[in-house]
Amino acid sequence: MSEPVNVSEYVAAAAAKVAPETWCYFEGGAGDEVTLRANAAAYGRWELRPRVLVDVGEVSAATTVLGTPVSMPLGIAPVAMQKLLDPAGEVATARAAAAAGVLVSVSTITTCSHAEIAAAGGGPRWLQLYVLADKQRTLDHIAEAREAGYSALALTVDTPYLGRRERDLRLGFLIPADLPLPYVRGNDPAIAETMAMHFRMSPSVTWRDLEWIAAESGMPVVLKGILTREDAGLAVEHGAAAVWVSNHGGRQLDGVPAALDALLEVVEGVAGRCEVYVDGGIRRGTDVLKALALGARAAFAGRAIVSGLAVGGEAGVARVLSILRDEIELGLALLGCTSPEQVSRTHVQPAVAYDRGALG
Amino acid sequence: MSEPVNVSEYVAAAAAKVAPETWCYFEGGAGDEVTLRANAAAYGRWELRPRVLVDVGEVSAATTVLGTPVSMPLGIAPVAMQKLLDPAGEVATARAAAAAGVLVSVSTITTCSHAEIAAAGGGPRWLQLYVLADKQRTLDHIAEAREAGYSALALTVDTPYLGRRERDLRLGFLIPADLPLPYVRGNDPAIAETMAMHFRMSPSVTWRDLEWIAAESGMPVVLKGILTREDAGLAVEHGAAAVWVSNHGGRQLDGVPAALDALLEVVEGVAGRCEVYVDGGIRRGTDVLKALALGARAAFAGRAIVSGLAVGGEAGVARVLSILRDEIELGLALLGCTSPEQVSRTHVQPAVAYDRGALG
Amino acid sequence: MSEPVNVSEYVAAAAAKVAPETWCYFEGGAGDEVTLRANAAAYGRWELRPRVLVDVGEVSAATTVLGTPVSMPLGIAPVAMQKLLDPAGEVATARAAAAAGVLVSVSTITTCSHAEIAAAGGGPRWLQLYVLADKQRTLDHIAEAREAGYSALALTVDTPYLGRRERDLRLGFLIPADLPLPYVRGNDPAIAETMAMHFRMSPSVTWRDLEWIAAESGMPVVLKGILTREDAGLAVEHGAAAVWVSNHGGRQLDGVPAALDALLEVVEGVAGRCEVYVDGGIRRGTDVLKALALGARAAFAGRAIVSGLAVGGEAGVARVLSILRDEIELGLALLGCTSPEQVSRTHVQPAVAYDRGALG
Amino acid sequence: MSEPVNVSEYVAAAAAKVAPETWCYFEGGAGDEVTLRANAAAYGRWELRPRVLVDVGEVSAATTVLGTPVSMPLGIAPVAMQKLLDPAGEVATARAAAAAGVLVSVSTITTCSHAEIAAAGGGPRWLQLYVLADKQRTLDHIAEAREAGYSALALTVDTPYLGRRERDLRLGFLIPADLPLPYVRGNDPAIAETMAMHFRMSPSVTWRDLEWIAAESGMPVVLKGILTREDAGLAVEHGAAAVWVSNHGGRQLDGVPAALDALLEVVEGVAGRCEVYVDGGIRRGTDVLKALALGARAAFAGRAIVSGLAVGGEAGVARVLSILRDEIELGLALLGCTSPEQVSRTHVQPAVAYDRGALG
Repeated sequence: MSEPVNVSEYVAAAAAKVAPETWCYFEGGAGDEVTLRANAAAYGRWELRPRVLVDVGEVSAATTVLGTPVSMPLGIAPVAMQKLLDPAGEVATARAAAAAGVLVSVSTITTCSHAEIAAAGGGPRWLQLYVLADKQRTLDHIAEAREAGYSALALTVDTPYLGRRERDLRLGFLIPADLPLPYVRGNDPAIAETMAMHFRMSPSVTWRDLEWIAAESGMPVVLKGILTREDAGLAVEHGAAAVWVSNHGGRQLDGVPAALDALLEVVEGVAGRCEVYVDGGIRRGTDVLKALALGARAAFAGRAIVSGLAVGGEAGVARVLSILRDEIELGLALLGCTSPEQVSRTHVQPAVAYDRGALG
Repeated sequence: MSEPVNVSEYVAAAAAKVAPETWCYFEGGAGDEVTLRANAAAYGRWELRPRVLVDVGEVSAATTVLGTPVSMPLGIAPVAMQKLLDPAGEVATARAAAAAGVLVSVSTITTCSHAEIAAAGGGPRWLQLYVLADKQRTLDHIAEAREAGYSALALTVDTPYLGRRERDLRLGFLIPADLPLPYVRGNDPAIAETMAMHFRMSPSVTWRDLEWIAAESGMPVVLKGILTREDAGLAVEHGAAAVWVSNHGGRQLDGVPAALDALLEVVEGVAGRCEVYVDGGIRRGTDVLKALALGARAAFAGRAIVSGLAVGGEAGVARVLSILRDEIELGLALLGCTSPEQVSRTHVQPAVAYDRGALG
Repeated sequence: MSEPVNVSEYVAAAAAKVAPETWCYFEGGAGDEVTLRANAAAYGRWELRPRVLVDVGEVSAATTVLGTPVSMPLGIAPVAMQKLLDPAGEVATARAAAAAGVLVSVSTITTCSHAEIAAAGGGPRWLQLYVLADKQRTLDHIAEAREAGYSALALTVDTPYLGRRERDLRLGFLIPADLPLPYVRGNDPAIAETMAMHFRMSPSVTWRDLEWIAAESGMPVVLKGILTREDAGLAVEHGAAAVWVSNHGGRQLDGVPAALDALLEVVEGVAGRCEVYVDGGIRRGTDVLKALALGARAAFAGRAIVSGLAVGGEAGVARVLSILRDEIELGLALLGCTSPEQVSRTHVQPAVAYDRGALG
Repeated sequence: MSEPVNVSEYVAAAAAKVAPETWCYFEGGAGDEVTLRANAAAYGRWELRPRVLVDVGEVSAATTVLGTPVSMPLGIAPVAMQKLLDPAGEVATARAAAAAGVLVSVSTITTCSHAEIAAAGGGPRWLQLYVLADKQRTLDHIAEAREAGYSALALTVDTPYLGRRERDLRLGFLIPADLPLPYVRGNDPAIAETMAMHFRMSPSVTWRDLEWIAAESGMPVVLKGILTREDAGLAVEHGAAAVWVSNHGGRQLDGVPAALDALLEVVEGVAGRCEVYVDGGIRRGTDVLKALALGARAAFAGRAIVSGLAVGGEAGVARVLSILRDEIELGLALLGCTSPEQVSRTHVQPAVAYDRGALG
């Protein structure tokens, strides 16, 4: 295969390059992978409405996320264990992101330390946070991230237990015993067993913990993993700095709505009180524009990014980011917009084969 | 193939193991098998709405069915002639069910006697009942089941004549002459002809017979095979203890609604006056949770269970039950529920590609 | 292949047996065959609603069509040139129909004379009529049919010009020069050219001609080829004895509605003022029951019947008729009906994946 | 393959004949080609409603477009660089069009000069216009076209930047250095680089430029590339002579509506104040009739025509035009119409599987 010309080709190239018993962890979803497929398919249910004869001689994708300037309304979603794909792991991803002015989220299950990542470049960074059963350890983790220059916490709330990812079971995916997992494994060698890490995540985190983490950290807390208008409202009431619509890339409960479909009701529940983000299924710049038109401030991509990492390391991530930014800017111009802020609800409509009432 | 990791893989493994001219009887449906496929597909028309930041440290699938405690809201549907799949037949299934605390329904066309089944373990048991043309024989059958500890009758009302199952016709499925069918065949060797058994079922059973059976047996009578709100209402008025929504696994009249679709109108027709169950198409724990959210007290699985029986005998049934209970409990937790009773209509919504008005 | 167990298998067997350059004429539709496929698919958009605990010990498919007693609510649609499939042609079909008590329609493009057909058995017969450019010839044709015991005329109104049937063009279908076409070709040998026969059909037939034919013939005139509520109303006003919903088996204008879809609006336009029939896509007894539930008095099958003719001559037609009657009677019983007259609108509903508003 | 019997077969034959690295330019769309496929599929979402017993002895497809008499309501859309497909290029196409009385649009990226095209025959001609960054050059171009007998300008407004056509990128499509492009390349040899031509198109054209072009040219200006009711209204207000609904054959922004879907809202926005045309996805005469029924005065075909050109040069274009006119006339007759003007909204309805509310 020649050089990939789009993100889907990067995903295919990664699948061809990485060993199946490793790639399954990154590629797979829970159960029958209905939600995994739905995430990408949902973007096809919306059409773009382009306006013409607007001067689009100057177009820029630049915007802000939680007040931080970024080069485009697309950030990097947290993906665990990136050293399984490239020796430089999260450091490579963070370097490409910093060079491109893109916000990167680092997983609690990172294989690089926050200090290493911070040393790799000064771009905007968020910590994706799991609350561990050992709460002091969680506080230590937050403190370390804060010192390393992370500007916000993305608290994942959809993982009281790990979803059942059957590709991993079929292929026997194992976390290598020597893989560094500084914020999960610590000094405990026994944690190397497959999926064992989840024993350390607490299934008893509640809304009160959100308030506790916000107070203890002094950092903005983004709630990642919200899929309903009810929880969106509760998130705002309990002090979330922003709401991140996500079904964990289809890896937790199979059969939940596609992230883009949930975005609509979450935006309704939030009612303008904070920023809303969405991840899951982003393959095109036009996907990002659709998310914006439906009320997201920004979208996040995970598999797209680590596909670039797997194929070409830091340069691969840079290339994926470059493709997506080009697509976003071309899309803006062809919509008759010169910036992400100009993208509005009038720029999309449900595709005609779908129930327009239901899609809103 | 390595060990199945889910129910669909058990069904595939059974199809690979059992002789086609036998498995056709268990796998096939009537006519073009439209309803057979629709049963499973219907679950895909509903999405789950998970709530987050709920303490799900303790989750249990245990519930009750007609007042009987069971370990989960999924029972075993009646399947005929199980000795065609495993030498221990219904005894193996009943043993696994008892060990797992699961309700088992035994078919009138069982290849084990009720006494044998009772001796296999003390779990909750129902008798699936066909009214034979010879009514006294039906009464004798009921009496024997009652003595053997069966707690309810599931009267099948969708089979005045057998559906036209074309796989059986194409493959020449024959009931072996020496297969024991203690409650159908009796002493009559001539009954061994293909499909001949239906000559003994009465096509003239009416609502009055329901009252007659209830009075004669003194047992709760569950009506199995209801698909309309009208018949659901009549069932309650004529004294049914519960209504079991079923299209006989797509084996009777091809072209009737998927069981899950019919569940909605039956729940409406029953209007809370008795428990409602549903069978047909269950492959996942989340299918059971969707049925609960739409008003069922419990679901029943047939092909899933006998696939386990065909693949691994009693241990295979136990493994299928274990997978489904794990899926139900994980699904409860990820929905933000700690018990089946907490699952409500707000936990599901029609998938966005379907007509939300029509789906309710 | 073993003996077909259903109509679809007969159609497949006919396609396997008859030479492609002949079978194309019978099997193909116009243009992209969208309507051809839609005819069969439309039946899948409706589900059956079965009622239970009704005494169905005695069930009969017998009914009447235009007052004539028939053994089931399914007649034989006119199909041209049946000697291309079996040496006995229309006589074989008529014989099987008469033996089964089934109404048969004979095409103007029959390869047997009406006298031969009449001699073959005394079953109910209709003449399908094309108005030729030579009107006297049309009157002579009618007179001959009336003498031969035909009880009604089915005037085809959807063929001012022949549809463009591209299978015929690709495979070079030619009407053999020696094929007898007593009511089209007459003494003119030049008519043997492909599709040439349509030069003799008039493209200028109007509503006045309906009145003229009714007056001249003294026979009830059924209008075949109506697809809209507007034309259904006009048909009644101009004295049609019945309206036959048909798109000519998808062979005229590709892209028109499936016949079953059009049935709904035609029934609305007729408003009970005359009987309504439908043809196109019938493959199952349950298809007939759906048509009845939606307001048809009877359905007609063409390809199903001539598939039987191609596979087994008169016996093949008899077998197809027998399968369909068995399916109709079993379907009636499983719906909780003992006769066609009991089938009502409450016995069907749009399948859940379709727009229930649109389907009515 | 034998001679194509319809347009789709011509498209397939062209794909088989022309080198892939050339044909990709003509065949491909932008991005994932969702809109490209949607264009053709949209016609399948509408059904035709034929009226019967109308005298259709005399049928003609002749009509007018912007007051110019044409032989049918289907014109030839502008397609660039036709000498890549046939040595005679646009001259061959124009000759076939003139002979058939069909309106032809000539692209700004033509490989023949307007004088050559004018010399080829006197049929009705429009110039498809791109506004280049060098405005004087645009004025010169218009003047030359006017002198060469072009009667209107079709100003393309959907191309401030070229869409991302990934087939071209994958196959390395290059504009040959010696291909004449008299109105784009001029004397500048450097423009031969792939896609470089777009540097000369202005991304800053606005509604004021429409007024400027209309005033300078004194010619009617048709706006080509409108997809929304808002822009349709603006077009009329700014003096457009007509509105041409187009998504550039799916080659600009992937994910915009199918042209036929957009036609509905554009017709609404125009509200009868000027003629409306549509291109994209036309493969059948019945597609044209559907566009007319939904409010278009005429449709335009691009790929269909250049497929004929690629397969058979001028004769191939003539054959494609002949097939389409035959289909239009047969379709008119079978709808019960004798001219395009008789085709009305009552002759179509949304296909039953689609949301009739949404489709209007």
